Formats: sequence, C-alpha cells, structure tokens
Amino acid sequence: MDIPGGRLAFGGDYNPEQWDEPVWEEDVRLMGEAGVTMVTLGVFSWGSLETADGAFDFGWLDRVVDLLHAGGIAVDLATPTASPPIWLHQAHREVIPVSRTGMRYWQGGRLMFCPSSPVFRRYALRIVAKLAERYGTHPAVRMWHVSNELGGGNRHCYCDGSAAAFRRWLAARHSSVEAMNRAWGTAFWGHRYGGFDEVLPPLDSESAQNPGLLLDFDRFSSDALLEHYLAERDVLAATGLPVTTNFMVGTGPDVVDYARWTPHVDVVTNDHYTRSTDPLRHVELAFAADRTRGLDTGRPWLLMEHSTSAVNWQRRNRSKEPGELVRNSLAHVARGSDGAMFFQWRASTAGAEQFHSGMVPHAGTRSKVWREVCELGAVLGRLAEVRGSRTTADVALLYDDEAGWAWNAGQKPHHDLPLPHAARDWHRALWRHGITVDVVPPWTDLDRYAVVVVPALFLASDDTARAVAAAADRGATVVVTYLSGIVDPTNRVRAGGYPGAFRDLLGVFVEEFHVLLDGDEVALSDGSTATDWTEHVHADDAEVLARFASGPLDGLPAVTRRAVGAGAAWYVAARLDDGGLDRIVADLPVTPVVPPQDGLEAVRRVGDDGTYLFVLNHSDVERTVPARGHDLVTGGAVDGTLRVPAGGVAVVKEALQGAP
Amino acid sequence: MDIPGGRLAFGGDYNPEQWDEPVWEEDVRLMGEAGVTMVTLGVFSWGSLETADGAFDFGWLDRVVDLLHAGGIAVDLATPTASPPIWLHQAHREVIPVSRTGMRYWQGGRLMFCPSSPVFRRYALRIVAKLAERYGTHPAVRMWHVSNELGGGNRHCYCDGSAAAFRRWLAARHSSVEAMNRAWGTAFWGHRYGGFDEVLPPLDSESAQNPGLLLDFDRFSSDALLEHYLAERDVLAATGLPVTTNFMVGTGPDVVDYARWTPHVDVVTNDHYTRSTDPLRHVELAFAADRTRGLDTGRPWLLMEHSTSAVNWQRRNRSKEPGELVRNSLAHVARGSDGAMFFQWRASTAGAEQFHSGMVPHAGTRSKVWREVCELGAVLGRLAEVRGSRTTADVALLYDDEAGWAWNAGQKPHHDLPLPHAARDWHRALWRHGITVDVVPPWTDLDRYAVVVVPALFLASDDTARAVAAAADRGATVVVTYLSGIVDPTNRVRAGGYPGAFRDLLGVFVEEFHVLLDGDEVALSDGSTATDWTEHVHADDAEVLARFASGPLDGLPAVTRRAVGAGAAWYVAARLDDGGLDRIVADLPVTPVVPPQDGLEAVRRVGDDGTYLFVLNHSDVERTVPARGHDLVTGGAVDGTLRVPAGGVAVVKEALQGAP
Amino acid sequence: MDIPGGRLAFGGDYNPEQWDEPVWEEDVRLMGEAGVTMVTLGVFSWGSLETADGAFDFGWLDRVVDLLHAGGIAVDLATPTASPPIWLHQAHREVIPVSRTGMRYWQGGRLMFCPSSPVFRRYALRIVAKLAERYGTHPAVRMWHVSNELGGGNRHCYCDGSAAAFRRWLAARHSSVEAMNRAWGTAFWGHRYGGFDEVLPPLDSESAQNPGLLLDFDRFSSDALLEHYLAERDVLAATGLPVTTNFMVGTGPDVVDYARWTPHVDVVTNDHYTRSTDPLRHVELAFAADRTRGLDTGRPWLLMEHSTSAVNWQRRNRSKEPGELVRNSLAHVARGSDGAMFFQWRASTAGAEQFHSGMVPHAGTRSKVWREVCELGAVLGRLAEVRGSRTTADVALLYDDEAGWAWNAGQKPHHDLPLPHAARDWHRALWRHGITVDVVPPWTDLDRYAVVVVPALFLASDDTARAVAAAADRGATVVVTYLSGIVDPTNRVRAGGYPGAFRDLLGVFVEEFHVLLDGDEVALSDGSTATDWTEHVHADDAEVLARFASGPLDGLPAVTRRAVGAGAAWYVAARLDDGGLDRIVADLPVTPVVPPQDGLEAVRRVGDDGTYLFVLNHSDVERTVPARGHDLVTGGAVDGTLRVPAGGVAVVKEALQGAP
Repeated sequence: MDIPGGRLAFGGDYNPEQWDEPVWEEDVRLMGEAGVTMVTLGVFSWGSLETADGAFDFGWLDRVVDLLHAGGIAVDLATPTASPPIWLHQAHREVIPVSRTGMRYWQGGRLMFCPSSPVFRRYALRIVAKLAERYGTHPAVRMWHVSNELGGGNRHCYCDGSAAAFRRWLAARHSSVEAMNRAWGTAFWGHRYGGFDEVLPPLDSESAQNPGLLLDFDRFSSDALLEHYLAERDVLAATGLPVTTNFMVGTGPDVVDYARWTPHVDVVTNDHYTRSTDPLRHVELAFAADRTRGLDTGRPWLLMEHSTSAVNWQRRNRSKEPGELVRNSLAHVARGSDGAMFFQWRASTAGAEQFHSGMVPHAGTRSKVWREVCELGAVLGRLAEVRGSRTTADVALLYDDEAGWAWNAGQKPHHDLPLPHAARDWHRALWRHGITVDVVPPWTDLDRYAVVVVPALFLASDDTARAVAAAADRGATVVVTYLSGIVDPTNRVRAGGYPGAFRDLLGVFVEEFHVLLDGDEVALSDGSTATDWTEHVHADDAEVLARFASGPLDGLPAVTRRAVGAGAAWYVAARLDDGGLDRIVADLPVTPVVPPQDGLEAVRRVGDDGTYLFVLNHSDVERTVPARGHDLVTGGAVDGTLRVPAGGVAVVKEALQGAP
Repeated sequence: MDIPGGRLAFGGDYNPEQWDEPVWEEDVRLMGEAGVTMVTLGVFSWGSLETADGAFDFGWLDRVVDLLHAGGIAVDLATPTASPPIWLHQAHREVIPVSRTGMRYWQGGRLMFCPSSPVFRRYALRIVAKLAERYGTHPAVRMWHVSNELGGGNRHCYCDGSAAAFRRWLAARHSSVEAMNRAWGTAFWGHRYGGFDEVLPPLDSESAQNPGLLLDFDRFSSDALLEHYLAERDVLAATGLPVTTNFMVGTGPDVVDYARWTPHVDVVTNDHYTRSTDPLRHVELAFAADRTRGLDTGRPWLLMEHSTSAVNWQRRNRSKEPGELVRNSLAHVARGSDGAMFFQWRASTAGAEQFHSGMVPHAGTRSKVWREVCELGAVLGRLAEVRGSRTTADVALLYDDEAGWAWNAGQKPHHDLPLPHAARDWHRALWRHGITVDVVPPWTDLDRYAVVVVPALFLASDDTARAVAAAADRGATVVVTYLSGIVDPTNRVRAGGYPGAFRDLLGVFVEEFHVLLDGDEVALSDGSTATDWTEHVHADDAEVLARFASGPLDGLPAVTRRAVGAGAAWYVAARLDDGGLDRIVADLPVTPVVPPQDGLEAVRRVGDDGTYLFVLNHSDVERTVPARGHDLVTGGAVDGTLRVPAGGVAVVKEALQGAP
Repeated sequence: MDIPGGRLAFGGDYNPEQWDEPVWEEDVRLMGEAGVTMVTLGVFSWGSLETADGAFDFGWLDRVVDLLHAGGIAVDLATPTASPPIWLHQAHREVIPVSRTGMRYWQGGRLMFCPSSPVFRRYALRIVAKLAERYGTHPAVRMWHVSNELGGGNRHCYCDGSAAAFRRWLAARHSSVEAMNRAWGTAFWGHRYGGFDEVLPPLDSESAQNPGLLLDFDRFSSDALLEHYLAERDVLAATGLPVTTNFMVGTGPDVVDYARWTPHVDVVTNDHYTRSTDPLRHVELAFAADRTRGLDTGRPWLLMEHSTSAVNWQRRNRSKEPGELVRNSLAHVARGSDGAMFFQWRASTAGAEQFHSGMVPHAGTRSKVWREVCELGAVLGRLAEVRGSRTTADVALLYDDEAGWAWNAGQKPHHDLPLPHAARDWHRALWRHGITVDVVPPWTDLDRYAVVVVPALFLASDDTARAVAAAADRGATVVVTYLSGIVDPTNRVRAGGYPGAFRDLLGVFVEEFHVLLDGDEVALSDGSTATDWTEHVHADDAEVLARFASGPLDGLPAVTRRAVGAGAAWYVAARLDDGGLDRIVADLPVTPVVPPQDGLEAVRRVGDDGTYLFVLNHSDVERTVPARGHDLVTGGAVDGTLRVPAGGVAVVKEALQGAP
C-alpha cells in the first residue's frame, strides 16, 4: 500500500451512496481539513453499482474516485461482495447461508452468502472483474480491499452445497474414510461413517456432537471463506496492486483462522473495537494489536477500522472519553500499525448502523469528536517517518485459533472458561510489567525470543511440542500452563498423563484435572491464590516452586521449573491471580521498555533511521519517563525526562546512543 | 354502552361452556348476590357455536343470554374470533401465523390467525354475521366486543400472505420504491430495493435489520390487525349497538397502536394486570389508566379486565392483599373508567388459565375473594352517579408507541433502557406530588394544559415539534428530556445536533450521547444523581439550572430552561434520580388535588352535577385529607377532614363551593 | 442376574471398539487386578456389528466376549439401539425425532430415533434378534441390557408418526372424543376437538398449551418408549436370561415414568451422577437410591452407571475428592444396590464423552482414580454376602412423576419451584435425622410404614387419597404438605377448597394460595420461617400447631394436626426452613438407625443370615457409632463402638441380639 507522500494511512470507510452529491464535495473538503490520506470505498456498493442483474452503473463511483483523487486522497477500493444486492437474493435465495437448525436465513443482513455457493461465486467474480478492469489503473486507487470482515455474518453455513464442499474437504484432509473414523473416534456413540458421502455438517442433533467433526467443520468453514477470498484476489492480482481483506483479530478464537490466511494477503489489516464494559480495554487493545502484528512478525500492518467514539452493537455503548480516540489510535501505531483508519467517515442517519459513531458525527464539526479527529490527523502527519519501522519484542506468546476451536468443540471439563483467558491473563501481566509481547502462531520461528509463554494451548501438534522444547534447549525460558498440549490436531486426548505434548519437556505428570467451582479459591504456598482450574501434579523431574496450600490438592505441586539445555521450562498448573502471575513474570529474563508505572504504556518501534519510543499515559496523573530525543507529537526536545500528562501521548524519536 | 339502571359496569368474562347447565343458574344467582351488572360473553365460544364447518349451534347461547337477561345482567357479546376452532386449523393450516424464523405455528394457542389471511377473514365474518343477526336485537345485549386482546398471540405474522399485504401497505405509504429506499436509507449495507415486490418482512437475517423497515413492519402489523377489527366492526355496526375491542394498554410500547385505533371504537375498553414483582404496582396501574383515558381525553372508558387476585402467567403470581382488589378497581374508576370488570367470572378448573383467579374462586364463596367481590359490587352500586363524569388534569405527558417501536427497531446506543422508562419516571414523580396527568398521543390538543412533559419521545414529527413549541409560546411550561426528537417518522436521525426536533425550542445543542454503564452514577450540581443516560450539552440560548458535577461531562449543563413566549421550555439531559425529578416537579406551575402524602392517591372526577374526590390510601397508616361533602362509599358526611384508614378508599361527593 | 461366585456386580460399560485389539487383553488383565465381576458390553456397537444394511460382523464381539469369559468376567450384553448407525439415518432420515418446533433433528447425537417409527423398530428388532440368537447361550452373558438410557435423547418426538401413535393412545385412554374434551376442558380457549384425528402433539403454538393435553403427551411419550422396550424385551425373553434397561432415576420428574415401567424389567438398574454444584450431593444420591429402591420395595436393584470422578456435561465438572468414589458406591449398596458399576471402563480419548472419567483414566493406572477403583473392588469382594439382603424403612415418602408432569404442564402459580423440591426438602430432613425412607409410588402398599409423607403431591387420584387416609386410620402418622391433591389425574383442579383430595382427611380448608416472591420470608409462631409458598388455611377440624406470624396471613394456621382413627394427619401449609422441618420430623414416631450426627449416614440391610449396618462418614472428623459385630471393610471386630474416620466407611455385620 503506497500512500502519496509516504504518509501514514489516516481516514475511514467512505460510503458516499448514502448522501447526495453535494455532500461529497463537502466531504472531500473536510477530509482535507482533517488530514485524511486514504479512504476505503465501495464496501456496500454492489446494489448501487449493479442495480439489476447485469445492469452496471459506475458513473457515480467514477465521480467519487476522481473527486477524492483531486483532493489528494488515496483510495482503498473494496469489492462489494459483503453486501449482495436484494435482487440477487430474490433471484437466488439458495446463496443465503443455512443455520445449524437447517433454516435458511433471509435477506436483510450482512454477508448473507454461502462461501461455497457456485452461483454466488459467479456473480461475485463478475462484479470484481468489472471493478478491476475499470479502476485497476486509476491513480487514486492504491489497494484492493476484498469484501468486508469475511465470516462476520456467514461464519458457518450448513446448506447442502456446504455439506458437499465439506465432504470434499474431508476427503482431501483424511487419507480414507477409515482414517477419518479413527481420527474422530467415531466408534464411540456408534457413529462410524461408511463413506465420506455420509458425513453432514454438525447440524442440530440435540445432544453433543463429535469433537473431531466439530473441529474439522471449523477448519473447513475458515477454508471455505479463504477459498472465496482467493477467488476474488486472483481476479484482482492482475492489476498489480496490493490486495487485503480486513481481519477482525480480537481476543479470539475467531471464525476465520487469520494466522493461516496471512500468507495470502499483501497487507495485514485489522478492525478493532473496544468493549464498553472492560475497564482494561486499552490492555485488550494491546493484546489484539500484538496478535495482529504476530500474524507476520516481519511486516507492519494497518488498523483498517476502529471507532471515533461509541459503537451501536453492545448492550450499552459508551462514548470515548476526551483523548481516548488519540490514545487508542497511537496504541495501534505503537504496536506496528502504519496508520489509523475508522469506520466510518460520516455517521449514518439511517440503516443498521445509524448510531455508530463516525469521523463526522451527527452533530457535525462542532464536536469533540471532530476536533480530536483533526488533532489525530495532525499528529499522524508528524509521525510519517515512523512508517515501515518495526515493533520489537523479546517475549513470544503462543496462540492458535485451532486450540480455541478444539476447546469449544463438544463437552469439556469446564464450560465457563473461554480458552483465550490464559493468553489474556499472561499478556496482561506482561503489560503491567511494561514488556512488549509478540502474540504468535505456534509455527513462528522462536529463535529470537528470550521467553516463550504457552498459555492453555489446548491443542498442540508434535511439531509445536518440538519447537517449544528446542527453544528451551537453546536458552529460552519457556512457561507452559495448565490446559496445554491436551489434545492432538484431531482433537483426541493425548493419553498417558497431562499435559501430553509437553510432559517430557516439563518433567511433570498430571494425573487429573481439578476444576474449581464458581467462587471457589485455592491458596498457594507463595501467598497467591488460584481459581477455575487446578491439577493433580507429580513433579517427577522438576523443581517445585509453589505448592497448593488448601483444598484436596493441599501440599501438591502447583508451579514447577525444570532446567533444560541452556534454558528452563516452567509449568504452571493453576489459574493464578495477579499476584501469582506477577511473581513469575518478575523472574523472567526480560526487561521492560521503560520502568513500569501504573497505567503507563511504552512501546518502541525500530526503523532504519532511528527508534521511536511511544508513551501513552492511561492514568489520570502526569507520568515522567526517562527518555532523550524529541517528541514528534509536540515537536519539543526531550532531554532525559519526558513528562506525559494524564491521558496524554508522546512519541520520542530517540537520540542515538552517546549523542549529546 | 348502556347498562340498565344507569349503573356502572361490574362483572367479568363469562365462559359458561366450561360448565354444565345447572352451574349457569347458580352463576346468575351469585351474580345477583354480588351486584353484577354486565358480563362479557362468548370470547372463546367459536368451537361451541360452530362445531364443524358451517354447522352452527346457538341453542346453548340463547339459553345463557336469556338466563342473564332474566337476572338483569347486561351482555357485552364477544365475537369468538380470538379462538379459531380446531377444525378450522385442521382444514386451513395456512391461517396460522408464521414466526420470524419462517416456522408456521401450530394449533393450540390463542389468537392463532394471520390477520391478513383472506381465508380466515371469510370464516370470521361468517360467524360474526350470524351473531349480529341473531343477537343484535336481544334486549340483554348492550355492546359488541370484537375478538379479544387482538395482537396478544399474533403480534406479527411473517407468512407469504402477510408479506404481500405488507408490500401493498408500503406501496400505499411511500410514493415510490425510490422514496422508500431514501426513507429507509437502504444504500447502507447495500439493500436497495428494485421494486416493492422485493421487500420481505424482517425475517431472521442473523444480523441487525434496517430500522426503517422494522418500524414500518410494526406499523403494518398494527394496521393489519386494525383492518381485521374494522371488517368485524362493519358487520356489527348494522345492529346499531356500540362496538369495542378490549385493548391491553400497559407500560408500552404495545403491539397495537391503540392511540391510532381509538377513533374506530365506540367505547375504549382496557385490560390491565399488575406485576407481582413491582412494589409500586398501584402507580403503574395509574399510569396505564391515565394512558387509557388519554387515548381520547373527551370520553370515559371502561376497565374490561383485571384480576380479583393472582394471575398465572408471571414467574411467581402473588395473591392480592386484603383490600387490594377494591383499591385497584376504584383507582381505575377514579381515573375515568365507568366500571370495573374482571377476567373471569368463575375460575377455570381446566385449560390454559386454570390458575388464574376469578370472581368465584376454586374455593367458592367461602373466601376473601368472594367477600371483596361482593363488597366492590355494593360500592360500585353506590357510585352509579359518577358515571359519565370526567377525570381532569393540568399536565399532559406525551406518549407514542411509534417512538417505542422506533427505539426498539435495530441497534441503539443503549439496549437496557426500554423506552417508556422516562414516561414512567416522570409520571411516578407527578404521582408522588399528587398531580393528575393525561398521558396523551402527541397530536392531542395541548391548549388546556399548564404543563407539557415530553419524556424521551425518541421519534417526533415536525408537527409534534411545532405543537410543543406552540404550547410553550402560549404559556405552558414544557419539559423535554434526553432522547426526544432524535429521529423523524422514517426512523432517520435528525442530524445537526440533538435533540433534533426540539433544538430550537430549547436553545440547546447536544453534540454527543454519553451512555452510563450498569451501576454507574454521575453527580449533578443540585445534589441529585443521574444513571443510564447523560449528554454533552451546549446551552446556546438557555439558562443552566443544574450542571454535571462528576464524570467526563463535569461542569457541563444538565438541566436548562429557556423562556419562550408566555411560557418556558426546560431541557433535562439525563435520567435523574427521584430527588432530581422532585426538584423540577416542585417548580412546575400546577397544584395537587390534595396535599401529597406518602402512599396517598387522590383524583377528582367532574360531572355535570358535581365533583367526586376519590381518595385511596395505599399506606399502612390512616391518612387525613381536607374534604367536604359526603362519602359515597360509607354514606357518611365529610365536614372538612376525611379520615381514610390504612388500605382504605373514599369517594367524596364534594359540597358546592360556599355551601355550608 | 447371576454373577459367577455369587459376587456383587462391579465393573462398568465396556466399549472395546474404541481401542485396538491388543488393548483388550490389557483391559481384561486390569479388570482382574481391580476385581471386576461384570461389564456392560455393546451399548454403542450397532455401527460396528452391522456395518451396512444387513451386513453383520460379529467376529470382533465374539472375541471380546470370549476374552472376558476367559477372564471370569460376566457380560451384561446391551442391544445397540441407542446408537443407530449413520447408514440407517442416511437411508431413513424419517426415523430421527422431530422437535417441538417441527424441525427434524440430524444425525450425530444419541438416541436419535422416534420410538413410534415402524421403520426403526424393524431395523432394531433385526439386530436384537441376531444378538439373542448368537449370544443367548454364551456362558459369559448373564443379562440383557436393552438400549441405553431410553428417553435421554428422544424424550419427546413430534413427528407425524408420533402424532398418529399419540392419537391411537388417546383413543385407548379416553372413552370418546367428548370424554377427552371434558377431561381436558377444551371448551376453554375454544379448543374442542371434533375427533381424535384432530389432535396434534403440543407443537409450538406460541402461547400456553392445554394442561391436560400436555400431561397426556408426557404419558404417551413414556409409553411410546416403553413400547419400544417391550418389543426388544420380547425378542430377548426367549433366551431365558434376565432383561433390564438402565433407568436414570434422579431428582425427577423424569422423562420416563420408571415406576410404571418397573413391572416390565427383571432387574431394576439405575444410572446416577452427582452434581458438582450441590454441596449436599451425597444426600441427593441417597434420595435417588431411595427412589430407585422404592420402585419395587420387594427387590434389590443395581447401580448400573455412576462416575469414578468428573463428568463432562455440567458447566464445571469437579473431580471427586479422595474417598468419594468409595463412599458414593457404598451409599448405593447400603440403599439396596447389589453392586456398583461405572460409565465407563476406560476413559475415551475421542468422541463426545472424551472428558468423562473412567475406571482407567487418561493418565492410566498411576492415579488416585485407579487406586480407589481397586480399593472398591476389594471392598465389594468382601461384601459379597450382602447380596440379596434388603434395606428396610419405616417411612414412606410418596412420589409420582405424573405429579411433576402435571405441575410442569402449562401455567402455574409459581414457575420457579420445581415440583420435587418438597420431596427433597423432607427427604433431606429425614436424612439429617438418620431415618431411612422408601421413596415410593402412591400405589405402594403402605401397611408396613409408621409414617407416610406426602410432599407436594400435586396430582393425586381418588385411590391415592383413600390409601393415604387408610394408612392414618390404621395408625400411621401422615404428613401432607401444601400443593398436594390439587388436581385429579386429568390435571383438572379439584374445586371446593384445597388440598382437594386430602381436605377431609386433614380437616382443613384452604381458600387461596399465597405465593411468596423471590427473597421474601414469612415468620411462623414456632420460630421457623417459610419461603416460596404459603396458604390461607381454615383449620375446620384440626388442631393448629403453628401459625403464620407475619405477612398478610399473620395469625392464620400454618401447621395443623388431626387425630384420625389410630393415627394422625398433619398438614403443612408452607415451605418451611430446616428448623421448621426438623421440629416436625422430631415429633414423628420413628427412630433413627443410629443416633444422628452431622454428616453421618447409617443404613441397615437385612438379609436371611444377618443384618448389615452401613456407616458412611461424610464429615471431616472421626465419628463414633454404637455397633457390635465385625466390619466387613476392615475385617476388624466391633465391640460396642465403631470408629469411622473422616471420609471413611464401614459395613458391620451385626452380632445377633444377645450374642457376646
């Protein structure tokens, strides 16, 4: 993605078909005022571009693109396939997804298409080809944006066409139906398949379904969406422009396995929204950003959507506090985003998202939101040189959607404990200590990390187990928690003692899980407590660092450590409270970017020409941080002590070591 | 409705087909004992009157009607269309409504008919015509009661027939499909319709639907039921008897837009049930009664159903406390009902409502319920002269179901805040101050009101905005709250600053909503607090009476006042606690019926021959009230001080001003 | 059921088709090590035995049965009809049950068959006949186990075939359609049926259904499953071996009316699982065991399934504490089970129950679970002589699933109060007092009981009322509580004052229920309190033992007693707290097995050759109990004082009265 002037991306989704043409000119004028550099155009435009089957009208889009170009605004042009037109649904109701109960949905929602539908594919590629042909060489257009949040409204489809595609997928994955029967353990409950043609998607069967079937259907569903993405991408690739599709990397597990999609996108882009009820939403934001960066640790990425203020889809939608818009945006930039984009430019007055905030709110420019949008535009303008630099981390935290899918597939020991909780627990503890973390898929090269955290990686392949062991062997400190390595990639339990895949590395043998009830707490010998999950551990070949100090496991090991090659392997057999986590994190061989302070976030990006220290003050008091250089936000010099006001931000272009 | 002897209506639903004939004679004897003046007959009788397609049996009904007539009991004769017979559902399953998921329901429920079904219409009108012909001149029959609680079991139907009717309705409402597209903003999410024939009801599309479509479908659904009502009414009108259909006016928003139905009924009748879990259920009752009266402030109305004690459809159904039955009944009469009717005469021993209380309970006449029924009958007998008098009020509170529908249509800033909360908040505050309120639709003539309250009137037309402004101009005090005038009648946001429709009148400009999370509270400068909703207000042309004193809006205006013509316009930008509301109510230019006391309810009805002061003591101590005249309940004289025992009631026929 | 060596049954479900053949040999070796005497084989084997329509493969089962026989393990051979094979569902989707919404479920669950399907019946009986023929004379096979937990996945089926069967069932039950109309009270809501052919199962009709229809559909559904059971049993009976089907007797009401099935099984067998969240799960276990024994008080029974540790289907699944496995097992044996079986032998690594504990856990034999399994096997080996002895009780507690169904059928005064709550309340109070209780169906011969408790027996026939009265008359103390005898067997209220069926016996007249709201409490004159339910009682012919002391019923009777013949009849008109229950239980003319102590459970089995005192210490301190004889668990002598350690168990073969 190449924005004129080498600027950071700044702008948002632009849906001009909602407004009369005179508004478009006002829009471009205001974009200029705010410093907008790029907009995403056309996400919902299919019905306006193809008003009936084969009846195309590109005139209005031509005018918009030209107008933007004249205003110096780059265009990220979307294919409109997230919004199939009503006429298509009327003519081909069969392209609409079918629910788990066998009900086919109706028109009027989002992403109402079955990704395995050949009829939909044909219509989709026709309009994509038209767009590629017409705009592929327009100087304003700098990137293709395939569809929108794929999987957001069509996460699973259970129609007959999807069933057929699922069967083909299974036949490709499993060497034979007997291999599939073995992998899934279908002998249990007597569900042996005589052939792939007997398999159905996991439609509602009243009782629990087979965990192997469920996991494979999740994989298939992600792959079916990927196949649709690739089909569009292949059409667009001919233009030579970069192609992206906007991810929705959150706390996971996601519908789409973004880590496995990443090789197929030219730019990783992400949509992120905070939760009103989460008092630590800025830490959740950091987690999502660290996951997005971790999808491909070699590349900057782009925040494609977030909100200027309130959204509309939560129970209660808070408006952002003063400064929060800028802090949220710069937090993403600090963690690797080469810009900050919003949904959407001008708040809708009608339609399903009429109460979603925009860059131009309902109230217009006489508003805090508009002032902060302009302020952000100015700041990003001054940060242009950050572009392309990289956020670095010494800690890898292993994360895999497949592990979450496996945990959610069928009945488990604990149904109130969403899998990413442990990744979040550990990321939050590291955040508190000021340590930057790459949240990465298990196949990431772990060589450059001093610490590797494996938090409740329920499903782990033999390769993953080997890579983690190798990291310890070459010197890394590895921390593995409960609920890791329990099942193999077929979702089958690794028998012979938990945590199956990591038992040898850790030198422990867990004979049984001990789930805690809601509200129950167990004490540990180090003064911390555990909730939710504990285990009956034998420390066969490991030092015991903490023991349970109450409950049925009283006296048994809770935290262990084993020296391994040049490194070490810890095992944490319980969900610890903050105190327990802090004690372990403090022992890890990593140092924070700056000394940690309450509510202070500091992250460094490293570029070819220098380093950039991002400092965000989430607290309500001024914080001082040791730094030297000059602040790109204020333009002021920083000679040893940086003062960041309550709620404020700074980006220090750091002085070279030893420079005066 | 004309009851022999000019008496108030007193009685209940009478479903004699549940019992053997000897019981009927006992019933009429007991009705005499209790002072019953009217019963509603035949609500569930279709299957007994037409035992198979075209096979009519009116003999038993003839006998019942004659028996009642001989007992001096008037008959409110129901058409039985709320209970389509099983044979009809068996022969024409297509008349049963279809759910939002596309599933057609099955026989065995209530109101299981699609109001747009021509097949159902034909069968319904045939039996209605038979009834009109046979009983239209019977001297016992004084009123027609069309069906029962229309919309109670068939609020929405999504069948193909309803879809076709909806499309016809849309074509009549919108001048063209392009006008409809503009009104709904279908360009967003790309849902532009090429013709009315492409529209479907808002069937399950997995994600949020268009707010304009949803609102129009609510309107259509009410109109479809109205069309059915009118078809029955037209058949009955020939008899010259008054026609009603029993409403279910509650806290709203309702399924049926009763305010827009009211011109079509000869007598407004209402069903009302209190909620076991509501400690202020007597205030909620007052709200419902004030809404019912407000539907047509020129006419008395009739409480058609309430309960003698427990109902059966709540999670836990409390029995009424001693005296509660009488207090509830008289509260309705105080607020304009010309009588008090119950569901039902004799408690069922079988069927879906076997545990709903009746006038004759399961235990029979040896019961508190029966004693209080007889007591009420006697009291109502002594109150006959009240008939036709009118409850008067100086305060109008604007209420519109369309505003509630609009708020519920699609995603909103706050999903835990049912719209009528503000109407209830303000009505409750006025109740505490002893002030009688007409809860009225926005098109009501506001000329005679000293105060007009506009509580969270989310949808407001330009006409409504003008009428409210005019009221202020001619001298009224107008109080508008947050969440008013936000959308126009198409459910489209009025951009340019909230509260769009009322901004000029109020002299304020709101740039953004600030929804509060569950449990959050914000302080105001006047010592009160706000929850749920606050706003970022600019008091451009208004005096600031209170400011926010904590949170992100600290120091900004919360309550403002603008002098307007001969009156004033207040804006209240937050959901205030009781203290905050009380402070404002105390400033309003109205005086209570009697000085307010805790738990005391006093309402005046004004007749041609005198005025009637109803006093209900909901507290558990005796209350004294200044009054002069004589108490129609006890027959005693009241010379200056009325003593009302704990839980007691009095109706003082007031002495003329200056009389000794 | 005849186990070699006259041993108690000990073992579990064995599903060898999950494992490779070498594991089978290991299994039989480990079974020997643990002392296993019997396994249930083949529950999920249909798909492995009939791999395609008519293609049978019994070779592997032959080998397993022979291997078990060689190991001295008896086989309880299951028909595999709980697990219809995929090929059958593919070929005949019509055998899958249909939900209340009319949706037919899909393959992949459990018990996915309509019990009224003739197609399914044909396939099922074919494989059953094959098994009977092949294994009916194998010396290892000692019992037939029909299907598995019938009703567990197919509690109700609403398909057309079920509808037709339901109509036939109704025609057999009701003498005419008019009789059915009267029984159900279909005149109400106008749902009169013109013929049986117009009846549908209670499919989703949006609003409440007729209580009589709902109750009859529950009866039919149980009978439809029974009919299927009987069809299988008839095929198997020819072999001369005993036939069972494993019940799921819990706290009820159950899907299957086990009390009415009991005459048709040769051995009553039961599956029981404790609830993680129930701190008194050992008392709930006692209730379930007492219910199971009470199904046929003349016979021992068998615990067919329970768990060695955690299950997988609760929100959070606790693992059992040390000793809990043995205590749970012996509690069942104490209460009449001739053994203790588990689900399942070896924990699955795949399939829907992969996280359900087994006798051989995932961790293998290096585990507490395995050690306790072996310990239990040894203990049961030493208890062989207990076999056939009977648990005796002086208290009968009447329980009937039909009462629970009736209460759940349609709208009731209180929807948060599951019917068995009162049976549980009273059983728990009796448990605290060390009194053994037979929980029995109402038609049980009550002659030998000193006390008969009738706790909220909502539905009671005239026969039941007569039997209870006769028990009092001949000297028993009868305790009837609120919510008893309210409806007759058609689910119609007995009018004329509650508790209809028992009013004369008790000498009380209840005019109205007074349901309490959540959190509300009412005081009684004896110092106890009531929640949930109170009643307005007239003690016409009964002594008042306690009165309400607060609330609207203040001063009215709450607990009454009437002398009746040689006995007495108490009425308890409120849900009392533990103190209130304890006060009444202390007055009952029964003595505990041993003096009650906190957490101590003592039960006696009486055999032809002696008596056995089972003592279970659920507390965490040692308890001493007066006893004499020798402890079969430890082998030690007991001469006057038995010491049972915290969490421990003892089974004292008691010395004959007067022996030294």
